[in-house]
Amino acid sequence: MSFVDPSLKMNDLEMSEGAIPLFEAVKAHIRDHVDPITDEYFALAETLEDRWTFHPRQLELLEGAKNKAKESGLWNFFLPDSESGEGLTNLDYAYIAAELGKSPLASESLNCSAPDTGNMEVLERVGTPAQKEQWLKPLLNGEIRSAYVMTEPHVASSDAKNVSTTAVLDGDDYVINGEKYYISGAGDPRCKIMIVMVKTDPDAEPHKQQSQILVPLPHPGVEIIGPMHVFGEDHAPRGHMHMRFNNVRVPKENMLLGQGRGFEISQLRLGPGRIHHCMRTIGKAEIALDLMVKRGKSREAFGNSLIMLGKNLETVSRARIEIEAMRLMVLKAAKAMDVLGNKEARVWVSMVKAMVPEKACQIIDQAIQIHGATGISQWTPLAELYTDVRHLRFADGPDEVHHMVVGRAEMKQH
Amino acid sequence: MSFVDPSLKMNDLEMSEGAIPLFEAVKAHIRDHVDPITDEYFALAETLEDRWTFHPRQLELLEGAKNKAKESGLWNFFLPDSESGEGLTNLDYAYIAAELGKSPLASESLNCSAPDTGNMEVLERVGTPAQKEQWLKPLLNGEIRSAYVMTEPHVASSDAKNVSTTAVLDGDDYVINGEKYYISGAGDPRCKIMIVMVKTDPDAEPHKQQSQILVPLPHPGVEIIGPMHVFGEDHAPRGHMHMRFNNVRVPKENMLLGQGRGFEISQLRLGPGRIHHCMRTIGKAEIALDLMVKRGKSREAFGNSLIMLGKNLETVSRARIEIEAMRLMVLKAAKAMDVLGNKEARVWVSMVKAMVPEKACQIIDQAIQIHGATGISQWTPLAELYTDVRHLRFADGPDEVHHMVVGRAEMKQH
Amino acid sequence: MSFVDPSLKMNDLEMSEGAIPLFEAVKAHIRDHVDPITDEYFALAETLEDRWTFHPRQLELLEGAKNKAKESGLWNFFLPDSESGEGLTNLDYAYIAAELGKSPLASESLNCSAPDTGNMEVLERVGTPAQKEQWLKPLLNGEIRSAYVMTEPHVASSDAKNVSTTAVLDGDDYVINGEKYYISGAGDPRCKIMIVMVKTDPDAEPHKQQSQILVPLPHPGVEIIGPMHVFGEDHAPRGHMHMRFNNVRVPKENMLLGQGRGFEISQLRLGPGRIHHCMRTIGKAEIALDLMVKRGKSREAFGNSLIMLGKNLETVSRARIEIEAMRLMVLKAAKAMDVLGNKEARVWVSMVKAMVPEKACQIIDQAIQIHGATGISQWTPLAELYTDVRHLRFADGPDEVHHMVVGRAEMKQH
Amino acid sequence: MSFVDPSLKMNDLEMSEGAIPLFEAVKAHIRDHVDPITDEYFALAETLEDRWTFHPRQLELLEGAKNKAKESGLWNFFLPDSESGEGLTNLDYAYIAAELGKSPLASESLNCSAPDTGNMEVLERVGTPAQKEQWLKPLLNGEIRSAYVMTEPHVASSDAKNVSTTAVLDGDDYVINGEKYYISGAGDPRCKIMIVMVKTDPDAEPHKQQSQILVPLPHPGVEIIGPMHVFGEDHAPRGHMHMRFNNVRVPKENMLLGQGRGFEISQLRLGPGRIHHCMRTIGKAEIALDLMVKRGKSREAFGNSLIMLGKNLETVSRARIEIEAMRLMVLKAAKAMDVLGNKEARVWVSMVKAMVPEKACQIIDQAIQIHGATGISQWTPLAELYTDVRHLRFADGPDEVHHMVVGRAEMKQH
Repeated sequence: MSFVDPSLKMNDLEMSEGAIPLFEAVKAHIRDHVDPITDEYFALAETLEDRWTFHPRQLELLEGAKNKAKESGLWNFFLPDSESGEGLTNLDYAYIAAELGKSPLASESLNCSAPDTGNMEVLERVGTPAQKEQWLKPLLNGEIRSAYVMTEPHVASSDAKNVSTTAVLDGDDYVINGEKYYISGAGDPRCKIMIVMVKTDPDAEPHKQQSQILVPLPHPGVEIIGPMHVFGEDHAPRGHMHMRFNNVRVPKENMLLGQGRGFEISQLRLGPGRIHHCMRTIGKAEIALDLMVKRGKSREAFGNSLIMLGKNLETVSRARIEIEAMRLMVLKAAKAMDVLGNKEARVWVSMVKAMVPEKACQIIDQAIQIHGATGISQWTPLAELYTDVRHLRFADGPDEVHHMVVGRAEMKQH
Repeated sequence: MSFVDPSLKMNDLEMSEGAIPLFEAVKAHIRDHVDPITDEYFALAETLEDRWTFHPRQLELLEGAKNKAKESGLWNFFLPDSESGEGLTNLDYAYIAAELGKSPLASESLNCSAPDTGNMEVLERVGTPAQKEQWLKPLLNGEIRSAYVMTEPHVASSDAKNVSTTAVLDGDDYVINGEKYYISGAGDPRCKIMIVMVKTDPDAEPHKQQSQILVPLPHPGVEIIGPMHVFGEDHAPRGHMHMRFNNVRVPKENMLLGQGRGFEISQLRLGPGRIHHCMRTIGKAEIALDLMVKRGKSREAFGNSLIMLGKNLETVSRARIEIEAMRLMVLKAAKAMDVLGNKEARVWVSMVKAMVPEKACQIIDQAIQIHGATGISQWTPLAELYTDVRHLRFADGPDEVHHMVVGRAEMKQH
Repeated sequence: MSFVDPSLKMNDLEMSEGAIPLFEAVKAHIRDHVDPITDEYFALAETLEDRWTFHPRQLELLEGAKNKAKESGLWNFFLPDSESGEGLTNLDYAYIAAELGKSPLASESLNCSAPDTGNMEVLERVGTPAQKEQWLKPLLNGEIRSAYVMTEPHVASSDAKNVSTTAVLDGDDYVINGEKYYISGAGDPRCKIMIVMVKTDPDAEPHKQQSQILVPLPHPGVEIIGPMHVFGEDHAPRGHMHMRFNNVRVPKENMLLGQGRGFEISQLRLGPGRIHHCMRTIGKAEIALDLMVKRGKSREAFGNSLIMLGKNLETVSRARIEIEAMRLMVLKAAKAMDVLGNKEARVWVSMVKAMVPEKACQIIDQAIQIHGATGISQWTPLAELYTDVRHLRFADGPDEVHHMVVGRAEMKQH
Repeated sequence: MSFVDPSLKMNDLEMSEGAIPLFEAVKAHIRDHVDPITDEYFALAETLEDRWTFHPRQLELLEGAKNKAKESGLWNFFLPDSESGEGLTNLDYAYIAAELGKSPLASESLNCSAPDTGNMEVLERVGTPAQKEQWLKPLLNGEIRSAYVMTEPHVASSDAKNVSTTAVLDGDDYVINGEKYYISGAGDPRCKIMIVMVKTDPDAEPHKQQSQILVPLPHPGVEIIGPMHVFGEDHAPRGHMHMRFNNVRVPKENMLLGQGRGFEISQLRLGPGRIHHCMRTIGKAEIALDLMVKRGKSREAFGNSLIMLGKNLETVSRARIEIEAMRLMVLKAAKAMDVLGNKEARVWVSMVKAMVPEKACQIIDQAIQIHGATGISQWTPLAELYTDVRHLRFADGPDEVHHMVVGRAEMKQH
């Protein structure tokens, strides 16, 4: 059975009947409760003395939208097949995620931002009752936020064996030492818990050397060195933090699933995480295409609207074609996860992870070009969309590693 | 309602349950009755003194396969929604057509080669009883073949208004004058009927100037000047003929549908025709990827298999991703035709017509490159696949015109 | 005579013997006096309370390097064919500019930063004695800085006819009204003079409607609204300012060359300005390639150095090939300006302006990719190089306009 | 010293004064003596019963042009630094070769076709007096033609170590066994001598295993199996032959330079050979661009000339830019060979060999697209240009191997 076997019955990509009301409700929620607060929210950020805090009014706005979501029963629908969640399939979620990608606040207003969704899913599946009580519960309530701590500055972390941060059992505690960077959200004052990838068993076989362990924030040994930039942006107050673990002690009960099972947890989390990013990216590419057409129609030069000049209309056409192709591929990868399970579907996940951010970057870049200098300014969301999606070409594995996965799967079929 | 409105319910791309037995039977037919005769068939072509004929044994082989298809009830399944056909949806047909694209003789063995399918569909829908009796019947029986005569050498025929071949009513006859080229299949001694695009009403509004008319072959006024080449190949004996109409007289009953309704007939035919080509092209790209991987695994250089050198494995991955994306887009365009009808679905048809041949050319070209000189030789099908698909980037409208259709549809949504 | 006529004798692209000592002296100056202060200079910027000022120590460092340049006779060598300058050919300057592009402070240390060079050249050529005394002299001395004010936010300024800022003669003053943006350097407290593109003669023929006029800074009517961003960066304290001219009065003597002659001045300035940018961009692409190779060699994954994985080595090769091709094209465009004059050489200038920033962006982007997240961080210059060069794809005319110039010139040759 | 060191003084790319009269004379010769016979020559080929012969009138035309060249002193100017040749530098030759590339008969009319030039150069440099008398003399006189026999069908010959055809000394003869293919020109009845790459010393170190040996044609043991195709073309009567060496005996005096020195000879020949191909390819790209513009200006659709529609004018611009960049790179590689010698210049040769055929293919492909079906027909030279240049992407080493050479040279500089 090959991974592209048509007999696998993975081509019904229609949203389920049951999910349609939720999909419509989410769109209504964004339109009614998120879009109206977005400009004020970001304008407030400009007024802060300390950029690494929130303005009280920002939190008020956000909590208002979150409460609306709770009231409408739109809270935590991301959790698949679980008591706490809606039991959405990945396929149904894909449709919704594309809508979330169009708004910078929509995900948080519905408690389904990265990396919280992945962290909650991990805790839900492998957490102990005590871990769930202490961390999953407030996360599910939207009271705290969390971080996922994997990437290291001094090794090629695309190869998981390279993880160099260590956790050593000392009495009843693990003692963690090492350096991590690009830890998104760890600057957020509401971030209270981190899942940290560490090396516990350097002499075990490659896939059993790593563990994942819970570290609360703030913590005396966790030194937050400063924010990493994304093309000059630090995304305060959430940030992408550079941090050092200096003899960080946590009780051995903070270990997730069991020592040496870090890779296993990654398998669990990365499939959905990667695909949620790609789903949201479809929404971002849609925004870019929309702006491209609007700008092209509204500006004139050389006696014609910009969109009718040179290759612009063909650029629009190619963007539309690529967006539709990406959308179908993301839906198919989601369906594959539903039908085959995360592990068997991983070639499909790698296909969309290698495809979508690269093509979306090109589309956003073309939208920038048609805007002239305004395209890279703060007057459109395009520069921010570009740098976000460009970042995604390394996050959760660079394009090259995903192409390697797909290429090898292809080889094995012969 | 926009053409990409998700509420259109066009994302169930699964083959229907009812079509699966047919799909399996077609694959079995190709495996059992077509693949075994293919090498002998083409070897015989090399032995002919007159390349513009068939070897009797070639026809014997072909008729054998055709008879097997008839016996198995696999004959004429291409005709959608008709008494004579299987009533296949475009979506179901798409799955089958991708299989047909992998074999150079499969389509003909099942009586679903271009341009016969398009011609039969036109006759079925708009032919008079007499036209059906005289031409559709032998076509449906696989006794004769046909040609579709549109492209002209001296004008940009991507703009239909440019057609310059004229048909003038003179008594009870139309008299046709003009020049046409790249008339595929018109060299085939079995080709007995042509549908010819002519200008009848130069003063009417643009879309009512053209007509389509039946011209039998051979005909005293139809001068076949010679074969046009496709990258040096003339594809004898079917050929892509250059022909002149010198006062060709045909009875006025040969007019299809009515004078001035040529454009209307084109709308009817081009959707399915274009999409069938794209469907078969998916199959061709699969063949190319298959050969790429086989070659890459079997050859060694610099101490490694070719496929593990440089960018080759990424090239394989990108080819797989693009093929799956193209496949889903073709299935979606087919579904759009089923759901919306040919006219409303035309943006989807243009999307795949602009996307598929271009990307498939790239994949075949990369398969060529990994084969070295063997890739452009007669030892693999790659050169032939390349030139076929390259040709498709003009046939039924060049890429540029389809991008224009898509770009304009996008503009209209704003 | 066509613009690519080989008989034009424009292929001797060697640096002149006479310029070699200067070229070597500039490299030594950068190595000895600029590189050693660069880290401290930028670290100081991080310590400022008001980001729109300089730290006194920053200016001290910079003035130190400037004085070294003056002492070594390396001051103002950019001015071609003039009393004040070295009389460097564009070709010789091209070699030097590529070196300048490798360091963020080198140009300023030698008084040859944009837009000052262009402004000084304009004043040198068309300024009145009084204008020269008041503005050119302190600019040549490096005592003040300047801005060039062309782009407008509400029109497609790639079409010069669209300029909407007006200057109207009222008594002995011009009164200026309008809005401009992306005015680079206008945030710098040392910026004391601006050359402003205005419309003075809306009823004249298209190329005689514009004028260029001197406006000193600060000025009561010049409202600096705020900084425009470049992918989230505001480049304080120099900035890319958004400004409004509210009944700005300047004496009519501030008009340059004469009312209605703004286009003429543009012709004079844009050739060299555009090509200087491209020259410096070659240096930036070299930096990116250098970092790409260093990173590729120093990081390991999957049992090999990164550079030996997948397509990386081919990416390096393609970058080297493109850099050498760009370098030769820039040298040729410079030579064309020397041989043919700015006006006749403008097709060559458009060729490199359309070619170099686009290809350099790709090279920098690939260098980013091989660095993983570090590539978009503040730890390498790559993100800054990328956004600078990306910006250049609109500045001084977007790629599309330059391709139009080249395409039309090609058409005219037939 | 790095290979891109600017101090190498390799940027004077002007044709030498002394070569200008020759350059002009060659252009006049093509215009006056080659262009006028070209159509008749190829029309005659269509009339032949046996396509693997020449029509007597074809040879008469060709000999006429050759005699004109001899009379004008334009014969054998390709040979650098030799008694028999003009002593042209590679740089000067590059200008001429670009002109030769524009005409399919020009090279032969001047006795500088591939592979004869390479073979003559090898014989001139390493041939014994007897070898020169017997083979070089008639080649220099244009009385016979020759072949170069390297590529093998069953191994990846991009890695020279893979050569599997053997030559074993047996008494005073070498006995050769093996299979070769794509031996260009070996079908020509005038082809009387071949230089054959063989393995003589399988146990020696990798670069001393191969030898090159002379084999006359016809020869009883040389079995010419048939012509290999290039995209369906067999290029009769010269052909690209598939041949088998069945115990082919040649006297040991036929060995060139000495057993085990085959690689050394390759180094000698491949530099110039590769670069001559690239030079001629510039001429071919010029032809394609010329046709692209002519077609674009002369055809109309949708109310405008084709060239003004969509991206066509930008395509023209990009083609012009790439052609000029390629031209300068080829001139620079030629200059590098003149300044550094073939061996030191090999990175430059690999740069242009990897760059030029790939980009020229794209330009020709775009010229095809603007022609519609005529672009792949026998009515323009475009299809033939495309397949020739596509073939060049493997001949003398595939692109990938040249990128490896360039990438490794870049790595060594750090």
